[in-house]
Amino acid sequence: MWPDRRLLDLFGIEQPIVQAPMAGANGSAMAIAVSEAGGLGSLPCAMLDADKVRAEIDVIRQRTDRPLNVNFFCHTPPRPDPDRDAAWKERLAGYYSEFGLDAEASAPAVSRSPFDETMCEVVEQQTPEVVSFHFGLPEEALVERVKAAGCLVVSSATTVAEARWLENRDCDAIIAQGYEAGGHRGMFLTDDVATQPGTFALVPQVVDAVKIPVIAAGGITDGRGIAAAFALGAAGAQIGTAYLFTPESLITDLHREALREATDDQTALTNLFSGRPARGLMNRVMREIGPLSDQAPAFPTAGAALAPLKAQAEAAGAADFSSLWSGQAASLGREMEAGELTRQLVLDTAQRLKAMAAED
Amino acid sequence: MWPDRRLLDLFGIEQPIVQAPMAGANGSAMAIAVSEAGGLGSLPCAMLDADKVRAEIDVIRQRTDRPLNVNFFCHTPPRPDPDRDAAWKERLAGYYSEFGLDAEASAPAVSRSPFDETMCEVVEQQTPEVVSFHFGLPEEALVERVKAAGCLVVSSATTVAEARWLENRDCDAIIAQGYEAGGHRGMFLTDDVATQPGTFALVPQVVDAVKIPVIAAGGITDGRGIAAAFALGAAGAQIGTAYLFTPESLITDLHREALREATDDQTALTNLFSGRPARGLMNRVMREIGPLSDQAPAFPTAGAALAPLKAQAEAAGAADFSSLWSGQAASLGREMEAGELTRQLVLDTAQRLKAMAAED
Repeated sequence: MWPDRRLLDLFGIEQPIVQAPMAGANGSAMAIAVSEAGGLGSLPCAMLDADKVRAEIDVIRQRTDRPLNVNFFCHTPPRPDPDRDAAWKERLAGYYSEFGLDAEASAPAVSRSPFDETMCEVVEQQTPEVVSFHFGLPEEALVERVKAAGCLVVSSATTVAEARWLENRDCDAIIAQGYEAGGHRGMFLTDDVATQPGTFALVPQVVDAVKIPVIAAGGITDGRGIAAAFALGAAGAQIGTAYLFTPESLITDLHREALREATDDQTALTNLFSGRPARGLMNRVMREIGPLSDQAPAFPTAGAALAPLKAQAEAAGAADFSSLWSGQAASLGREMEAGELTRQLVLDTAQRLKAMAAED
Repeated sequence: MWPDRRLLDLFGIEQPIVQAPMAGANGSAMAIAVSEAGGLGSLPCAMLDADKVRAEIDVIRQRTDRPLNVNFFCHTPPRPDPDRDAAWKERLAGYYSEFGLDAEASAPAVSRSPFDETMCEVVEQQTPEVVSFHFGLPEEALVERVKAAGCLVVSSATTVAEARWLENRDCDAIIAQGYEAGGHRGMFLTDDVATQPGTFALVPQVVDAVKIPVIAAGGITDGRGIAAAFALGAAGAQIGTAYLFTPESLITDLHREALREATDDQTALTNLFSGRPARGLMNRVMREIGPLSDQAPAFPTAGAALAPLKAQAEAAGAADFSSLWSGQAASLGREMEAGELTRQLVLDTAQRLKAMAAED
């Protein structure tokens, strides 16, 4: 029934749905459910160490023999910048005193590590069918090792220039990540969020610019969106926010509640929580500081100073300092298990494609 | 062949394509060509006086008996703010001295007037089939007169809340204007551009929220986009940038040249040229001041201080101070006459819909 089978044939999957790897928000359970339902399940590894990655892949391999995507960040860790960190703490000082917190207060901050030698060894041992990267690609030698291990290599492009860059470096498929997408923008050749294209404009322009299959991402939450992605020339869709509504999602109750009540005009790109622009639901700290701040420390360290505030606020039932990642179409989300959601998306898309069939 | 005939039946047109009214960039010629080709031609009136509107409609009525859309802005003119104007002139002082211009230099500035009593009389006399508004709706008494004259009333929504507001005030159809759209954003219940949804996310959420037909707008430049708009639940598409490439477009050669070379990542929302956010191709003044400035005077007066710089720069062949309105998918534009473009879009959409037809 699919108008384009390139992605299905490339990945060896039955349904053209890639479950977006969502670091901190999904682990093996969601990946298993989606792969078993015929889509491509994804394990996000940016916040896991090598042992945990190995263990999670082992669990997945025991539960399904379907293809798996394993996702890594590939940023360059920043040099320590104590002056900048101090200025940021100063910016947050009013919140610290509001909560009665000492300026030296600390709480476990989210840590994100780039793909490296150690992770590459895990990939070579475990050989997931697909390895996807965010923020470009790791150094060439590592990419070559991943490909030599037999894994397909995929990355995200937020512009046509990034898509061409990835194709020139032998990526097997490209995720065209539109402005609507939740979580971190994969942008790596530009840091200008003002010129980032929306999904509707990005997908056909990327499709025209590259020969490899394009996976549309950003604002796709239901069967209408998947059908529209095909109309624009994509060979499949990557879906994130819709899977945050499933019981397999690892998000907090506060995050889940915020998603349930989300409307179309409540998200913004923010760098406050990590140092890089990522889309999430607006909350107090985003409103008061502004969602994008020149003062936020470099990725991935910005969240450290917010961590004690986040811990206190969450303990009191408030998500005022928490990252509430979400795309722009959360209101279309439905609460069901990840496998059931995958099957429902397939049925809805099929129905939509049928309704659009030209009558002569 | 169309999956949804509601818009065709409502407007009495053959093809579900609305040519976007583009103040300053199109007049009667483009509207005639599009209406004759079966779409809905639009006459933008924000920069015309009542006599000119009457004359343009007369020309159109002589050349076609097909339905016509006449478009008006409905902003509230700002109070004079000499201090703000002076501060803005000060901000631009460096450019004035670079061009050897006196601070008191002036050049004809673009003027934009809201729909009023006088324009309403023109509408009552000329009775265009459709009257569309931008920035909400005019006062209730005027809307009632437009409807009493037998005209359908349409306006743009950039969020679900705006769509509901328009439906509650008896609009006959809604243009869901996504973030990708070129020119002025129709936003009227919010001034927060950071939370504006992209077309892909906006259209299905608006479709779910209202009962009247929804016209998708923003980043739609070819048949793939029109097919995708239908997939998302729209009953038609409003297309602007693609029509800027036609000989009927009234844009400058500099603007045309910039569009020909445009890539997906070259536009931004800017308030520098009018005081309200509008999407255009990045140029020198947008880069140097930043595309959005808190200092820009209120709509529609911001352009006045730029006018002398624009005149000098354009005379020297540079669009450094000109508004180069464009959506995010200009690279998909093709140079052909407006009627031919309309027919080609229909053919391309039909082909796309056929290619997507589900195989059993």
